[in-house]
Amino acid sequence: MAGREDTLLNQIRARVSIPRNSEIVVGIGDDCAVLRPRGAREDLLFTTDQLIENVHFRRDTHPAPAAGHKALARGLSDIAAMGGKPKFCLVSLAAPKWADSRWISGFYRGLLRLAGQAGAVLAGGDLARSKQFSCDIVVCGGVPRGRALLRSGARAGDCIYVSGRLGGSALGLKTQAGRAWRVHLRPSPRLALGRFISEQLHATAAMDLSDGLSIDLRRLAIASSLAAEIVNPPVFRGASLEQALHGGEDYELLFTVPAIMDARVPASHQGIPLTKIGVMRRGPAGAVFLNTRRLAPLGYDHFRQS
Amino acid sequence: MAGREDTLLNQIRARVSIPRNSEIVVGIGDDCAVLRPRGAREDLLFTTDQLIENVHFRRDTHPAPAAGHKALARGLSDIAAMGGKPKFCLVSLAAPKWADSRWISGFYRGLLRLAGQAGAVLAGGDLARSKQFSCDIVVCGGVPRGRALLRSGARAGDCIYVSGRLGGSALGLKTQAGRAWRVHLRPSPRLALGRFISEQLHATAAMDLSDGLSIDLRRLAIASSLAAEIVNPPVFRGASLEQALHGGEDYELLFTVPAIMDARVPASHQGIPLTKIGVMRRGPAGAVFLNTRRLAPLGYDHFRQS
Repeated sequence: MAGREDTLLNQIRARVSIPRNSEIVVGIGDDCAVLRPRGAREDLLFTTDQLIENVHFRRDTHPAPAAGHKALARGLSDIAAMGGKPKFCLVSLAAPKWADSRWISGFYRGLLRLAGQAGAVLAGGDLARSKQFSCDIVVCGGVPRGRALLRSGARAGDCIYVSGRLGGSALGLKTQAGRAWRVHLRPSPRLALGRFISEQLHATAAMDLSDGLSIDLRRLAIASSLAAEIVNPPVFRGASLEQALHGGEDYELLFTVPAIMDARVPASHQGIPLTKIGVMRRGPAGAVFLNTRRLAPLGYDHFRQS
Repeated sequence: MAGREDTLLNQIRARVSIPRNSEIVVGIGDDCAVLRPRGAREDLLFTTDQLIENVHFRRDTHPAPAAGHKALARGLSDIAAMGGKPKFCLVSLAAPKWADSRWISGFYRGLLRLAGQAGAVLAGGDLARSKQFSCDIVVCGGVPRGRALLRSGARAGDCIYVSGRLGGSALGLKTQAGRAWRVHLRPSPRLALGRFISEQLHATAAMDLSDGLSIDLRRLAIASSLAAEIVNPPVFRGASLEQALHGGEDYELLFTVPAIMDARVPASHQGIPLTKIGVMRRGPAGAVFLNTRRLAPLGYDHFRQS
């Protein structure tokens, strides 16, 4: 049973046809779209992500710089998941009256700090008034031609890995304290790790964990036309297994490597643990089995009927 | 006196530095950002525009397909203003409960129809829930390397032209009837014209008229460090001179051509009138003189104190 959001996406995708001479080589449905400019050495990755007041952040709990950081981190995480290196970003901002120039300045401070660290030049944007704060960020990244990590590349027998420990962001959102809250407020896009798994581990598929392992692994499995068998994933200290399985916004990487590369996967990369949680296998496309039992996709769905 | 929106933009721009090795060759402040991918034949143009409920459209007066058309037309118009050809677009949508699947389907129908005509493949996007409908669209276009039409390229003595007749969109918004209303609902991005003025007329500068001639010509003049002297522009049938001078959303092109090319500018291009309205000259940067009197920039400013 697909979520409402995925259903809506599929309906839109069904109405789009990509002409044969288009430079778009990957369209709707992956973490990024992929453009192959004629003559260029690199493929270009594009991702767009919204940050909306009371959906993705709350102004009473999220300082303005943290909101700016998170807005950009979401897009950078998609670039990381494709094995890319950020080039630039565009920021569209719709601000209500409460967002005064001090708040907006703080928002850009948090955003530009992360942009500087990641090498993503702020190249343009749009400004408008609205009743509810919203920000849409497009990030463009580059990847060697033909080497973008897609969701659809996993093969039967590939080992499934996650980075970090899951559920921290969901825990932080609940407790608003300690390290979990800091992790929720300022997620770290796994940019270096994305390039490492692509270049050194020959990862076959990857995506970032934005909506929760259960729903995101389902999406990767659907894209690869395979099933997935996993055991309990590594759990963030203090979080529950439920939070680790279904909690969103961890922005860790979920990836698959060929079985032959399994022994080459280090226990950690630059301090971030890498944990094998299972294997891809033939079976109903998108089915996820946790400890041999079918796992329902309970992660975040913006369009679920509530 | 610069508008609040321009002031905010300038504050953001002042905080951004573009590294010397960046492929970004034009950043914040023009209709599009310009990327020069290493090895590529073309420069890539990027623009991002929001369409927000009760700011850019009203659901009681704008049919869903018209809203979708307009959302994309805004971005295509920026590509036209740089002399570019559209490649793809990304659509981020934040939809409240009232926007049911029928409305959203109509929105995409209008959008995809225009996308198909313009050659802009819908390559990705983002979906979220919100209280107020908003849509942010990024359009990417291509232009021969180094040939993007900028706002900053006008030289003293260049002739100033506009396409079409101005004020129709402002008139339509007021009367909600007749041809003016149709023009307001479904603006036509001047894509073929943008390439014509770039390739055939060697235009030195261009931008699209989105916020009104008075404020947009001021922006072009500031970018080119010149003043502008104009006479009354061509007025849309039934519109007032005020609407033609200060009304927004006409999405016609404002451009400058070298005096030596003046005789080569046809009276119209593919049925769209081209009218000389004045000349760029040395003087206070951004000053606009209408019939020798200083013209105040009264066009649309999202952040004006009201």
